Amino acid sequence: MAQWARLSGKHWRKPRHEVLGYPDPHGERSLRQAIAAHLRLNRGIACEWQQVFVVAGAQQAFQLIAATLLDPGDKVWFENPGAIGARNSLIQSGAELVPVPVDEAGIVVEEGVRRAPAFRLAFVTPAHQQPLGAKMSLERRLALLEAAESSGGWIIEDDWDGEFCFQGAPMATLTSIDRSGRVIYVGTFSKTLFPSLRLGFLVAPPHLVEQIGICLDAFSPGVPTALQGIVADFIVEGHFATHVRRMRKLYQERYQALEEAVREQLAPDLEVVPTQTGMHTVAFLRPGLDAVAMTRMASRRGVTVAPISRFCLEPIARDGLVLGFSGFTPAEIRAGVLDLRHCIRELAELGAGAAYWTGDSAGMVLSREPNSP
Amino acid sequence: MAQWARLSGKHWRKPRHEVLGYPDPHGERSLRQAIAAHLRLNRGIACEWQQVFVVAGAQQAFQLIAATLLDPGDKVWFENPGAIGARNSLIQSGAELVPVPVDEAGIVVEEGVRRAPAFRLAFVTPAHQQPLGAKMSLERRLALLEAAESSGGWIIEDDWDGEFCFQGAPMATLTSIDRSGRVIYVGTFSKTLFPSLRLGFLVAPPHLVEQIGICLDAFSPGVPTALQGIVADFIVEGHFATHVRRMRKLYQERYQALEEAVREQLAPDLEVVPTQTGMHTVAFLRPGLDAVAMTRMASRRGVTVAPISRFCLEPIARDGLVLGFSGFTPAEIRAGVLDLRHCIRELAELGAGAAYWTGDSAGMVLSREPNSP
Repeated sequence: MAQWARLSGKHWRKPRHEVLGYPDPHGERSLRQAIAAHLRLNRGIACEWQQVFVVAGAQQAFQLIAATLLDPGDKVWFENPGAIGARNSLIQSGAELVPVPVDEAGIVVEEGVRRAPAFRLAFVTPAHQQPLGAKMSLERRLALLEAAESSGGWIIEDDWDGEFCFQGAPMATLTSIDRSGRVIYVGTFSKTLFPSLRLGFLVAPPHLVEQIGICLDAFSPGVPTALQGIVADFIVEGHFATHVRRMRKLYQERYQALEEAVREQLAPDLEVVPTQTGMHTVAFLRPGLDAVAMTRMASRRGVTVAPISRFCLEPIARDGLVLGFSGFTPAEIRAGVLDLRHCIRELAELGAGAAYWTGDSAGMVLSREPNSP
Repeated sequence: MAQWARLSGKHWRKPRHEVLGYPDPHGERSLRQAIAAHLRLNRGIACEWQQVFVVAGAQQAFQLIAATLLDPGDKVWFENPGAIGARNSLIQSGAELVPVPVDEAGIVVEEGVRRAPAFRLAFVTPAHQQPLGAKMSLERRLALLEAAESSGGWIIEDDWDGEFCFQGAPMATLTSIDRSGRVIYVGTFSKTLFPSLRLGFLVAPPHLVEQIGICLDAFSPGVPTALQGIVADFIVEGHFATHVRRMRKLYQERYQALEEAVREQLAPDLEVVPTQTGMHTVAFLRPGLDAVAMTRMASRRGVTVAPISRFCLEPIARDGLVLGFSGFTPAEIRAGVLDLRHCIRELAELGAGAAYWTGDSAGMVLSREPNSP
C-alpha cells in the first residue's frame, strides 16, 4: 500500500495533458508493454504489446470477445460447471452455450466435439478449472487446439488465478502452445492485485488484433488512465512480481489450513478436492447432504460458500461447496470450518438433506451472483 | 489538481477493506448520494440516491439502458444528426434506429410520431443538441413526454454538457418536468471533470430501478472504487461546483473568441450557429464548399474539426463543421480559425468543393470516431 500510494501521488503530479484526456481505448501503451513483458517472463506467452488490450476486468474482455466473434445462435462450448461471470457475458451476445463436462483433466474435449463439432468459441480455464479446480492435462490442451483448428473456432483461455500455482510446476499456458493463433488469453488484476481496480486485459492472436481494436474503438472509451499508469509503474518497478510471489506462498499456507481443518473436522461429510493453484477449492458433500441448504445455513453463520450447482448449465453427478481461502487467515479458516461442522450437524438433525442432487439452478442461465466464489 | 491529489492521497490511506474489494456494481453509496444532492440543487432533479447508478461513462449508460429495455427490432427515435457514441451503443442491441430530424427547437417530435409512433425509446440531448447545438423548447419537451406516454416508450435525456449553460437562463431538464417516470437521465464526468476518469451516471425513474440494478449485477462488476471515492469527496467539499462555475465562464470566453474570429475571418464561407451552452458549436459552410474535404485539409494543418454529416443517419440539407472550443485558449482559437481560412482558400482554388452535400457517411451506422467533437 505504501508503494501504491507513492505511485499514485507520482501519477497526479504529471503534466495535465498526460493525465486528463481520453484514454486510448486499446489501453495505455506503458501498461500494454508492461503486461506483455510480464506474460513473456511468467506465462510463457510471446506476444507483442500491440496484441495486449486493457479492459475493465475479465468480464468486459468476455463481452468484447463475444461482440467481436459471436452471432446469435453460434455454438459456444462452456465448461460445466463453469464461471458465472463469463456465462452471463457470452449469453448476452445471443450465442447458444453448449455445456461440456469437466473431469480431473479439464474439459472433456471429445464430448464437446460430439455435442457441437462446429463450435465458434470454447471457454476454458486451463490453469485451474473454475470452479472444480482441475489443471487441464497437456493431452487435453492439444486436443482442444486441434478441435478449434478443425472447426475454425476460437478459444478463450481464462487465466484468472493461474499466477498462483503454489504446488508442482505450473503448466504451459494454452496460448503459449497455440501454433495456429486460435487462443485469446484473458487475465485480470482483480485477483493478482485487487478487485476495486477494475482492470483486466486480453491478448489477441495476430489476426484478431484489428477486429478487436475496431470493436473497442466503437464501443469502449477506455479505462481510467490513472489506474493504468499506476499499475504499469507497479509492474515495471518489480513490485508486482514480488507481490504475486508473496501471495502465492500465503495462499498455499491458507489452502493447507483449509485442507487440514476439513480433513480433521468434516470428513467424511465434506471432502476437499486437492488443488495446486489459486484462491479457492471445492469440497464434495456426502450424498444425502444438500449443498444449497448448507449454503443457506452457513450464510446465517456469516460464512460464505457456494453450491457447485450454481455454476452449472446442466446437472452434475455430485454436488458440493466452493470454498474460498485466499482472503482469510488460518485461524479464520479453522473457525469457518467449525461453523460448517455445526451446519452439517444441524442439517443431519433436521433430516433436510435430499438424497440426491436437487438441481437448484439447472437451466438457470443468468445469475446475479458475482463470479468470485 | 492540488485538491485532487490531496483527495487521492486521502483515499489510499483509508483502511484496506474499504479500498480493495469489489465495488458495488450500482456505484459507491457516497458518490450516489453526492450526485443526487448535486442534481437536486443544480439540475432541478428530485431523485433519491438509490435511483442513481454509477457507470464507466455515458456510453456504458446507453449500453446498459439498451440491454435493459431493447429487443432486436425495437424502434428507437434518434436525433439526426446525433451523438455517435450513443448511436453505436444503441445499435449494438439490435434495435432499429429511426432518424428524426432536428431544428432550432430540438427534435421534431411530430415527425418522430409520423415515422415510428410505437417507439420503444427516444434518445435526445435537450440542453444542447449534439451536434447542432439547439436548446429544446419547452413545447417540444412537453410534446416528447406526451408521445412517450402514449407509446409506453422511454426517453434518454443525455445531459452531457448541460452544466455549461453560459448564456440565458438554463431550461428545466426533461427529467425534472417528467410526471410519469418515462425519462432516464444520463450525465458524465468526462465533460464536467475530465475524460480519463471514465465515470458517468444515470438516474433511473422509480419503476426501472430494479431492472437496471439486475442488469448491472449480471453484466457489470462496477467501476473503480478509488475514483468514485475521490469524486464523491470532490463534490461534497464543494470543489466540483466551483470548478463547473469557473469552466462555464471560461467556455463562454472561448466561445466568444471563436464566434468573433469566424465572423471576422471566415464569413460568409463559414457561419457559426449561435450557442449558449457547452463546449462546441457548429458552423455551416457556404454551399459549394465540402465539409469532408475541409476536415481532411484542416487535419493536415493540425486542426481537428468534424463534418456534421458524420453524425447523420440520413442526409441533411446543409453540411458544416463541428467546432470544439472548450480545450483551447482564445489565441489558439484565433490561430485555428486562420488555418481554416487557408483551407477554404485552398479548397476554392482546387475547385474541389462539391456543389451539394455528398453524403460521405450516410448509411454508415457504426463509427470508429469518438463521440466528442
